[in-house]
Amino acid sequence: MSDNQQFQKFTSDPAVMQMIAKAKEKNIPTVWNRYEQMLPQCGFGETGLCCRHCLQGPCRINPFEEGAKTGICGATADVMVARGLDRAIAAGTAAHSGHAKHLAHTLLKMTQGKARDYKITDPVKLKKVAARMNIAVDDRKDNEIARDVALAALADFHEKETPVMWAASVVTPGRVKVLSGLGIVPKGIDHEISEIMHRTLYGVDADPVNLLLGGLRCSVADLAGCYMGTDLADILFGTPTPQVTCANLGTLKSGSVNVALHGHNPVLSEVIVQVAEAMQDEAIQAGADGINVVGICCTGNELMERHGIPSCTHSVSQEMALLTGAIDVMIVDYQCIMPSVASVAECMGTKVITTMDICKITGATHIEVKDETAAENAKQALTHAISSFKARKNRKTDIPEIKNTVVAGFSTESIVAALSKLNDKDPLAPLVDNIKSGNIKGLCLFAGCNNVKISQDINYTTMTAKLLKENVLVVATGCGAGSLMRHDFMDPSKTEELCGKGLFTVLNAIGEANGLGGPLPPVLHLGSCVDNSRAIEIAVALANYLGVDTDKLPVVASAPEPTSEKAISIGTYAVSAGLPTHVGVMLPITGGPLVTRILTQDVKELTGGYFIVEPDPNKAADVLLQALDERRAGLGLE
Amino acid sequence: MSDNQQFQKFTSDPAVMQMIAKAKEKNIPTVWNRYEQMLPQCGFGETGLCCRHCLQGPCRINPFEEGAKTGICGATADVMVARGLDRAIAAGTAAHSGHAKHLAHTLLKMTQGKARDYKITDPVKLKKVAARMNIAVDDRKDNEIARDVALAALADFHEKETPVMWAASVVTPGRVKVLSGLGIVPKGIDHEISEIMHRTLYGVDADPVNLLLGGLRCSVADLAGCYMGTDLADILFGTPTPQVTCANLGTLKSGSVNVALHGHNPVLSEVIVQVAEAMQDEAIQAGADGINVVGICCTGNELMERHGIPSCTHSVSQEMALLTGAIDVMIVDYQCIMPSVASVAECMGTKVITTMDICKITGATHIEVKDETAAENAKQALTHAISSFKARKNRKTDIPEIKNTVVAGFSTESIVAALSKLNDKDPLAPLVDNIKSGNIKGLCLFAGCNNVKISQDINYTTMTAKLLKENVLVVATGCGAGSLMRHDFMDPSKTEELCGKGLFTVLNAIGEANGLGGPLPPVLHLGSCVDNSRAIEIAVALANYLGVDTDKLPVVASAPEPTSEKAISIGTYAVSAGLPTHVGVMLPITGGPLVTRILTQDVKELTGGYFIVEPDPNKAADVLLQALDERRAGLGLE
Repeated sequence: MSDNQQFQKFTSDPAVMQMIAKAKEKNIPTVWNRYEQMLPQCGFGETGLCCRHCLQGPCRINPFEEGAKTGICGATADVMVARGLDRAIAAGTAAHSGHAKHLAHTLLKMTQGKARDYKITDPVKLKKVAARMNIAVDDRKDNEIARDVALAALADFHEKETPVMWAASVVTPGRVKVLSGLGIVPKGIDHEISEIMHRTLYGVDADPVNLLLGGLRCSVADLAGCYMGTDLADILFGTPTPQVTCANLGTLKSGSVNVALHGHNPVLSEVIVQVAEAMQDEAIQAGADGINVVGICCTGNELMERHGIPSCTHSVSQEMALLTGAIDVMIVDYQCIMPSVASVAECMGTKVITTMDICKITGATHIEVKDETAAENAKQALTHAISSFKARKNRKTDIPEIKNTVVAGFSTESIVAALSKLNDKDPLAPLVDNIKSGNIKGLCLFAGCNNVKISQDINYTTMTAKLLKENVLVVATGCGAGSLMRHDFMDPSKTEELCGKGLFTVLNAIGEANGLGGPLPPVLHLGSCVDNSRAIEIAVALANYLGVDTDKLPVVASAPEPTSEKAISIGTYAVSAGLPTHVGVMLPITGGPLVTRILTQDVKELTGGYFIVEPDPNKAADVLLQALDERRAGLGLE
Repeated sequence: MSDNQQFQKFTSDPAVMQMIAKAKEKNIPTVWNRYEQMLPQCGFGETGLCCRHCLQGPCRINPFEEGAKTGICGATADVMVARGLDRAIAAGTAAHSGHAKHLAHTLLKMTQGKARDYKITDPVKLKKVAARMNIAVDDRKDNEIARDVALAALADFHEKETPVMWAASVVTPGRVKVLSGLGIVPKGIDHEISEIMHRTLYGVDADPVNLLLGGLRCSVADLAGCYMGTDLADILFGTPTPQVTCANLGTLKSGSVNVALHGHNPVLSEVIVQVAEAMQDEAIQAGADGINVVGICCTGNELMERHGIPSCTHSVSQEMALLTGAIDVMIVDYQCIMPSVASVAECMGTKVITTMDICKITGATHIEVKDETAAENAKQALTHAISSFKARKNRKTDIPEIKNTVVAGFSTESIVAALSKLNDKDPLAPLVDNIKSGNIKGLCLFAGCNNVKISQDINYTTMTAKLLKENVLVVATGCGAGSLMRHDFMDPSKTEELCGKGLFTVLNAIGEANGLGGPLPPVLHLGSCVDNSRAIEIAVALANYLGVDTDKLPVVASAPEPTSEKAISIGTYAVSAGLPTHVGVMLPITGGPLVTRILTQDVKELTGGYFIVEPDPNKAADVLLQALDERRAGLGLE
């Protein structure tokens, strides 16, 4: 097998492939090497049949063995996997909502004059969010409204008179009834996380159905955290509008100070972008063309959707950005940062800067960033980058000449604005009419990560190619968006080639009406992982327009290459919202036959949504198409 | 090997041994069978070198293999074990504080007239707690004060202007400084749990030291949850005073309706005790002598310390209570309830009733208990018990004739009251003077569970016997207290035989001064697991009296047979409070050499406390004695 054939097992991104070759040549270990060394992986863990929730364990259940199959305490396989799943949902919820809580604090401090590097960038969004939260907006200063929004956000973390408002006010009225009926409207985001940790303790909940209902409730709290994250970031940094930009490793520039911003929360990266602009001269004095800021993972998505900052790479290939030898610092906030970046950076003579108190990495340089001193901290970090560039500028870099055109920045608001050019009185009408006519078969959201077990991006591209041809309107977030952008799925020049005729007609009509002289891109980039909220917002708008609940819509979701526990909590809230939700990696639940059946079948009777676990992307696309057809039939559409 | 020799591997409690024999004879599987079937247990899990925090895993690290040892993401062994430990601490914290939050809601509803089966039983404690929380008490009605206390408790779950008050106000002023200096004063209990789940997510914290500091902070939140649980239970149900009672399976009565109350939260069991009293006649009409309420685990401890209700058995032997054939219902709330009790109950023709929405068990009957309808729900459950008795009354039971005398009910308040009989102006003086003189070498707290890996109780009894002889004043909580009570360590007639001369003199003087005509029991029962707060209260009182911090005191803690993640979080807060803390089961951290070194050594420089991991009870006792000697030397005592 040639190197290239071997590397195809790892990635389908040609730029990444070049860097894998370099890593091999330089003998620098990467995630794929570590994965191969890890094989075979533990089958108990893979199926969820491993429990370490007490010191009598570890327990594991062999599903193929005769006899009673329980842990030492008597927990059945189903209890074991349900407990494990619940904790994963709690962790995902904690991450998204931790990010949102951070933004709420920033917003609050801004209103108090304590965070002077921040401002209200989108007062329209502020008022929209405030109104949704029943916060008075008339005759009030933005700053006052913002303070109340920030306080309302912080109040959603604990039990209070009302349920979690960022959950209860963002779904359809019908969905509130469904969730209430099931007892799964969350009371407080942190409260739910805590309750999951309690009920999954040794000797607490031992009823898999009850455990799963708890997990669903926590997932609704996760929706709230995501939605809040989107809302507050839009208020502080602006609601995204379409941006023409580019992606992939070719966005790095040998002659520039290359600063890669990696992680999730725009609270720091937004300030770095501003400060980098102000420090261009300093970079030029150091012999560079200037400072070239690029994004990785969702910090990259946040910057791309608001400022058109290029994305360098995503998820499983994050080490490859360093392998180019061109990155002068990688500044990280939190989530999805492989600790290995610190050692790869060291091999390449560069450095990783950590910035958040809950996310340090051994071997990285830590600059504690505070809301109060964000610009100053950003300057410190960029000063490191410039020195790093000075040391690196005469060294050879290996930047793959691969750069994909990307049109990003599709918030609900920017989509509605674009549609209003077709019908300004009733902007959803053109979309709904095209769904009814069949020009658009339905919507599919691609979300999630890359996963080292899957050749990078292949599930996304295989499924998306198939769905687009079948006239499914595809939207994407997170590293799902990252994946598709690096394969031209966000390049409007590919829309005609990639889409079915009906879909192309619609995307073209919208593009033309908006003066683009051509279609929208084949796939609409909705933003980062927290921005899965935007997909929910769109689905809810459609449902309310049609007078049905979200579980009746021809809308499906897929995380074809999930890695993070966040993907599990997002997938679960998609199910809670009533969507057929595909997952392309086996979840660690297959060891629990009842849990597997509930999540893939029975839950449909409760929320209308359900999981589809299917590793084969072609089959998965077919199943999603079938689900869309079923939903269309349910609505009486052809 | 004879059966009895074999059973000694399982338990050192002769009553339990009889039931193990019965289980074997009847071929009913028990926890010990399941443990044997589980052997050998997974070495990766045992050492903490297994990670399932993302879908790229499971990862495991073989510590004996050559080469780089990281997970797929690059997480080192130390990062892996620190993440795992942190999640265990978060789970333990969630459980204790969930219990406390439940009580806070009950108290609040009581003040609102919505929970009519509850009242303020101890207004003195109410005012003491209120004063500690800076809540006005003068000229205010108890009900108003109680409302403010309940609201203050609920406020401690989320971030607010002040830190977690149930943490910051219960330790020494010096300790607040130490914790602040380390950045480990918790901001909100649920907030900390959530933050642990965030930082232990894939790609967040990858610095073992930072992770451990996060774990320590969460453990301080656990102390708050425990302390709050004690305070609120004392207010609602009374602060414990000495009770003469008994323990072990011999407390069951063949001719009575035997109701076993199992779990942790007194919120239900207190009402059941009242309702059972009112239903005695009904039981007699059904042909019984009456209703015999007995406790299991900490629900048992809560009832014993306040009402002298006998404890039937504890922890690992909970199934054995059912094996007697005499239990008519086992009513459970939450925590440490082995799911297997439902199937053992079925084998024995009886039933388990679950009562809490977060703790259902497949095969059990569920009666949802609400604060608003507690007495009514209790009646429903007891009606089940009486019918169950009718069906069972002519069947043979096998109740071991083993019953141990127990004197329990040693709250800080009751200890101070007893001491005040020796010196009413300065009640701590007699205790401190005896510590100074060496009559008491120091204090040891035994806490925690039984663990199936250890012959039940043997570590507790071996260590306690040795420490008592060396004049260590031993206090015990939870299933540690349970263990010692079933081996006569709480029987005052054994004090002289079991204690060293100095300790006996003191215990005898206190007993005599209190008109007991003899000594206090050898070991003082401080209550349930949340009542480890009482041990902290005593240590803080001593420290403040001596004008030193808790890390200077000759006070040590031990969980010689821990099982629950709660034991891990308690042990960690003992370390945060500055105590040398023994654990008798290997924690899943041994795969991380840095983490192991920090927790057993380096942390001493930070908090003054540290972990001692030692499975051999004789050696462990020696190490604790040495730690006490060191502390005495530090204070300039012989």
